[in-house]
Amino acid sequence: MDPNIHYLFNPHSVAVIGASDREDTVGHSAIRNMLYGRLHGSYRVEGYPEKVYAVNVREQALEIPTYKSILDIPGEGIDLAIIAIPAKYIPKVIDECGQKKVKAAIVISAGFSEIGEDGKSLEEEMVRRARNYGIRILGPNCLGAMNVFKRLNATFTDEMVMLGPLSFVSQSGALCTAAIHYAKEKKIGFSHFVSVGDKADIDDADLLEYLDRDPNTKCIAIYLESLKDGRKFFETALRVNKTTPIVVIKSGRTEAGAKAAASHTGSIAGSDTAYDAAFEQAGIYRVATLEGLFDCARALGYQPIPKGDRVAILTNSGGPGVLAADHAMNIGMHLAELSEDTLKKLNDYLPAAWSHSNPIDILGDATAVRYTEVIDILQQAPEVDSIIIILTPLSFTHPYNVSQQIVQIAKHSPKPILANYLGIISAVSGRYLDEHGVPEIAWTERTVRAMHALSTRSNFLRFEAQAEIPPTQIDVLEKKDRIYTIIEKARQDGRHILTLLESRDILKTLGIPLTSGVLLEKKEAIDSAGIGFPVAMKIVSKQITHKTDAGGVRINIFSAEEAKKAYDEIITNVKNYDPGAEIEGIWMEEMISGTELIIGTTNDPTFGKMIMFGLGGIYVEILKDVVFRLVPIHLKNAEAMYDKLKTKAILEGARGMPKVDRKKLEEMLVNVSEFVHKFPVKEMDINPLVVTRKGLKAIDARIILE
Amino acid sequence: MDPNIHYLFNPHSVAVIGASDREDTVGHSAIRNMLYGRLHGSYRVEGYPEKVYAVNVREQALEIPTYKSILDIPGEGIDLAIIAIPAKYIPKVIDECGQKKVKAAIVISAGFSEIGEDGKSLEEEMVRRARNYGIRILGPNCLGAMNVFKRLNATFTDEMVMLGPLSFVSQSGALCTAAIHYAKEKKIGFSHFVSVGDKADIDDADLLEYLDRDPNTKCIAIYLESLKDGRKFFETALRVNKTTPIVVIKSGRTEAGAKAAASHTGSIAGSDTAYDAAFEQAGIYRVATLEGLFDCARALGYQPIPKGDRVAILTNSGGPGVLAADHAMNIGMHLAELSEDTLKKLNDYLPAAWSHSNPIDILGDATAVRYTEVIDILQQAPEVDSIIIILTPLSFTHPYNVSQQIVQIAKHSPKPILANYLGIISAVSGRYLDEHGVPEIAWTERTVRAMHALSTRSNFLRFEAQAEIPPTQIDVLEKKDRIYTIIEKARQDGRHILTLLESRDILKTLGIPLTSGVLLEKKEAIDSAGIGFPVAMKIVSKQITHKTDAGGVRINIFSAEEAKKAYDEIITNVKNYDPGAEIEGIWMEEMISGTELIIGTTNDPTFGKMIMFGLGGIYVEILKDVVFRLVPIHLKNAEAMYDKLKTKAILEGARGMPKVDRKKLEEMLVNVSEFVHKFPVKEMDINPLVVTRKGLKAIDARIILE
Repeated sequence: MDPNIHYLFNPHSVAVIGASDREDTVGHSAIRNMLYGRLHGSYRVEGYPEKVYAVNVREQALEIPTYKSILDIPGEGIDLAIIAIPAKYIPKVIDECGQKKVKAAIVISAGFSEIGEDGKSLEEEMVRRARNYGIRILGPNCLGAMNVFKRLNATFTDEMVMLGPLSFVSQSGALCTAAIHYAKEKKIGFSHFVSVGDKADIDDADLLEYLDRDPNTKCIAIYLESLKDGRKFFETALRVNKTTPIVVIKSGRTEAGAKAAASHTGSIAGSDTAYDAAFEQAGIYRVATLEGLFDCARALGYQPIPKGDRVAILTNSGGPGVLAADHAMNIGMHLAELSEDTLKKLNDYLPAAWSHSNPIDILGDATAVRYTEVIDILQQAPEVDSIIIILTPLSFTHPYNVSQQIVQIAKHSPKPILANYLGIISAVSGRYLDEHGVPEIAWTERTVRAMHALSTRSNFLRFEAQAEIPPTQIDVLEKKDRIYTIIEKARQDGRHILTLLESRDILKTLGIPLTSGVLLEKKEAIDSAGIGFPVAMKIVSKQITHKTDAGGVRINIFSAEEAKKAYDEIITNVKNYDPGAEIEGIWMEEMISGTELIIGTTNDPTFGKMIMFGLGGIYVEILKDVVFRLVPIHLKNAEAMYDKLKTKAILEGARGMPKVDRKKLEEMLVNVSEFVHKFPVKEMDINPLVVTRKGLKAIDARIILE
Repeated sequence: MDPNIHYLFNPHSVAVIGASDREDTVGHSAIRNMLYGRLHGSYRVEGYPEKVYAVNVREQALEIPTYKSILDIPGEGIDLAIIAIPAKYIPKVIDECGQKKVKAAIVISAGFSEIGEDGKSLEEEMVRRARNYGIRILGPNCLGAMNVFKRLNATFTDEMVMLGPLSFVSQSGALCTAAIHYAKEKKIGFSHFVSVGDKADIDDADLLEYLDRDPNTKCIAIYLESLKDGRKFFETALRVNKTTPIVVIKSGRTEAGAKAAASHTGSIAGSDTAYDAAFEQAGIYRVATLEGLFDCARALGYQPIPKGDRVAILTNSGGPGVLAADHAMNIGMHLAELSEDTLKKLNDYLPAAWSHSNPIDILGDATAVRYTEVIDILQQAPEVDSIIIILTPLSFTHPYNVSQQIVQIAKHSPKPILANYLGIISAVSGRYLDEHGVPEIAWTERTVRAMHALSTRSNFLRFEAQAEIPPTQIDVLEKKDRIYTIIEKARQDGRHILTLLESRDILKTLGIPLTSGVLLEKKEAIDSAGIGFPVAMKIVSKQITHKTDAGGVRINIFSAEEAKKAYDEIITNVKNYDPGAEIEGIWMEEMISGTELIIGTTNDPTFGKMIMFGLGGIYVEILKDVVFRLVPIHLKNAEAMYDKLKTKAILEGARGMPKVDRKKLEEMLVNVSEFVHKFPVKEMDINPLVVTRKGLKAIDARIILE
């Protein structure tokens, strides 16, 4: 990590450039927050930052001496510059900052790339100059940043957030403001609060890297509209997520684009689908709503990770319990199935009318003591991974007493506990939970979703621990050489597209079985070909890259006689299509039938090389039932791809269809991924790959070089 | 409607049976609410109900005279009895109520069907006795009911809700309590508030009927766990919904069942799928969350119905606007495409940096005046059906001013307006909106969903206005007679399942084309059959109801020679299978290919006869892509069924597949529906119905009589 990013959040000396004593200016708020903001109420940390300077070319800023230029400030250097002056002056000011050895700058000012081409040039100029000096820039067009544990409020908002384990990174300044208010209400505490603005220099990935090393950050919540370098984000997030969980809400007009997108590989990716794949692969929990972002971040930041997804729902009223169970099942969690032992303990303790199953309805007259006893029993139950506590304010249930008990238990609980208190009468008691690190979420569905974030993380960690790339055949030196030889030959010919035979050769090195076939160099070879009918016949020529268009393909040929006729027709067609084409021969191969799969790869503009897998034909074109991952994938990724396929039952012998060798298929996915990852391949499609009763067989492949 | 239900909510005289002066009893709360509850604060309505009596066999209740029995009360009769005594005494008390001419009773007490068989008998006894006297019972095991406009609080909760246009019916008492608190916080007003308990007598349908006639109820919100008589509910809801919108949240463990359900018609229905179909067909808006229930009910109760689903999103910050747009697209709404005219007006008025499209971002420095001007422009824009106003608290935007302007505009707005204010700093201003009938919903996704409830209702009303049953062929007397003749004949034979030829005859009367075929009474008839090969051959015998099991089916027969061989084989197989079977002959028919559809009907335990439609094979078995409706359906229902099919692109010529005659298919659905509706048919399946290039053709049908 660039150490200068550290100075952004931990400066010893700060200069506010554009500091002002006019109350309605951003420069006023910024200097005020530096000088006094840190003295407000409980946020007082004396003497930090050690030195704060005001810079303004024309004005005085409050009571401290104001310098006309940062260069006029006495002493050695300045760690952080907060810049709130008109955009056009900023490149020059950056130069001055560079001379003053500034390490990081927050550019609050707008007027850069968001206003069009001129602004874009100005932004590039600013960044270029900053890079000359190694200055890292947050923004432009941002609210600024807070390091809450240091009470550093380097923003122009006059409210500070509470101390706590979350960090928030937002591409929208307005949402930062809204989040500050919400966090205050819900007693959500933060370590860092960052408005990234236009991300001209410092981007989400840089911040992930920094926040991962921040000992106070237990969960990172991100509001994202777009990524410039998706690959960098993905790789950083995948690494960071192993120690610090990440939750994201991603909005973006691209979704409309995704819907309109046509059905082939290239256009499905590059869209929201690609973001979805990247988030899932990196173990980032994606939510669709702002409230969900904070619910899940609170759960991940404050509660332990469960062993699995078997949730126990404890309630004092039936209705909300059933709703919670519905939500849990809808989202794909499991309701813990209570063991004989647990049931016995509950039967011994509870009144006879309790629900006798999960959701555990401990009845409308439940007291705090009854809640506590049952939570204790659930803590001991090995079949329960996590506990949701629902409380409806009824006569005998005193929410505050229940909250106090829950807090005591949660302190030492290895299982996550989330609470869902209904009715505002419970608001004070809910807040008590919030203040003591047990997220209370006012709506049942949201509580369940937050628990799902926890169990999803538990899966991810287990999953990554098992990640491995199998020893693929292409790593064997001899095979590698063979691949390079094929690629080299095509390049020497000036070709980007490999021929059928070259592609078949490569598939073989990847361990992907193919249909049997033979290259006929003359028609007479048909008689001795030794391939049973029916057969298909395809032209082989370096010049003919679209065989069907050239009339170079015939299928369903049932006899040698038909084959000879087809041979002549293909030759005639191809010669008509391209008189200059060099014909190597005609490929004759067995016809096979079965369920058709596609394995494809593409180059996403945001995330780079991706691999796609799904059923062919209508499944990909109409049902869009395909799964994407960023290349390279490991075997667990391939398993996840397979499991994500909605139509996977088709591959598992439904309706008497041939059953796929799943393990073999997953290995093929990893091998294709390794191939496009390690070799100069732009795109590759195996279409179709057929599931037959004798195993998987590829019929055709198309490989395009970079 | 039974007039006694009217007395439940509008009694002149009330007796509280089990009234008590012990503060921790339900009987105390009930009599207190009757005597004093109505005097609380702004809820005071003097002299209503005119007479309140306390009944307790042992105790005094507060300061009013207490009678040992309702029979001891002087005067003619009592309209309403509120009963809060142990369950076992209630049947006797019901008799006394009957003698006292009580019209309705609220049985608060628990201890009935929820405790098992004994309780169930007690409940049946109670209802039996009540029916003797025409007494209508709400409950048992309920919280009671409120008629808020009359300040009648016939519950044991001590809080009254605000006056307003919603009515709430809940199967969970606990959720009633939670809802009262939430409503208070959000300034949601109600006309009626009803806890239905076990629904031993009065059920949701009765209440819908009553509430539809209540001039104060503008929207009915229901929390539902189960229905006893789904058909009654459906028919009532469909009728009521045309004047009073209904929103429902339905929970229930059946969902787990639905997931485990196998893939055939019978087991998909009877589950949550059947509820879903019934709600959709009745125009009931179903939500998944409690907050959604009140969001949507508020929108429907307080705002006008839009002309369509083209929403304009007005915002002062980009992020939330984009999120709203994402949600709107996800939920299937359309973003209004701003016309040249509207764009010109906006360009003329707004700063150059506005978003120039919908979402309409009027920038962070937007004032209340700017909001107002833009809303005015959108009011005039014919391409905009509804308006969502998003407000982020930023320096120049004063939420309270914006709220005041919105309220002024909303008073006369023909287009619905919903607001989404971010951040608690706007809470007071949001509440101002709530109080003035413009629902302010704190979270973007929920705001969009509430608007979706409005546009869905707009669709439903338009849709029902166009509903018609086409003049079907089976209504022609001659065809009707023919159907009855076939059914009668089968009945005389003691058969419930029609033969292939009988079923084909019925399909013909329903206007459903069939494959061409001929009944071979002897093998030699094959030569003169006049059907081109390939053909299929099937046994025709009244005794053989499972033709394939009996070895009575052969397909893919390519010549007369093969056909003769198949003929002999079938005869031999069938004779082995059932030596007593009378063989009418062998049906020989053309083989056709194309996309296979299924039309089926089933008898759902909750909703009765339902019709199902979808693609056959893996589509129904693995993708579960089938659509259900309650019988009878009209043509618009059939259209909706078709449109709901996820795989409908397959029927519309995708990948060169034959295109279906949609209109013809929809007519067939209506005809099948009419057939099972009007005739004593238990189940019917047309499987497959094949889409060929020459039109739809049924290959096989199975009709089971009642």
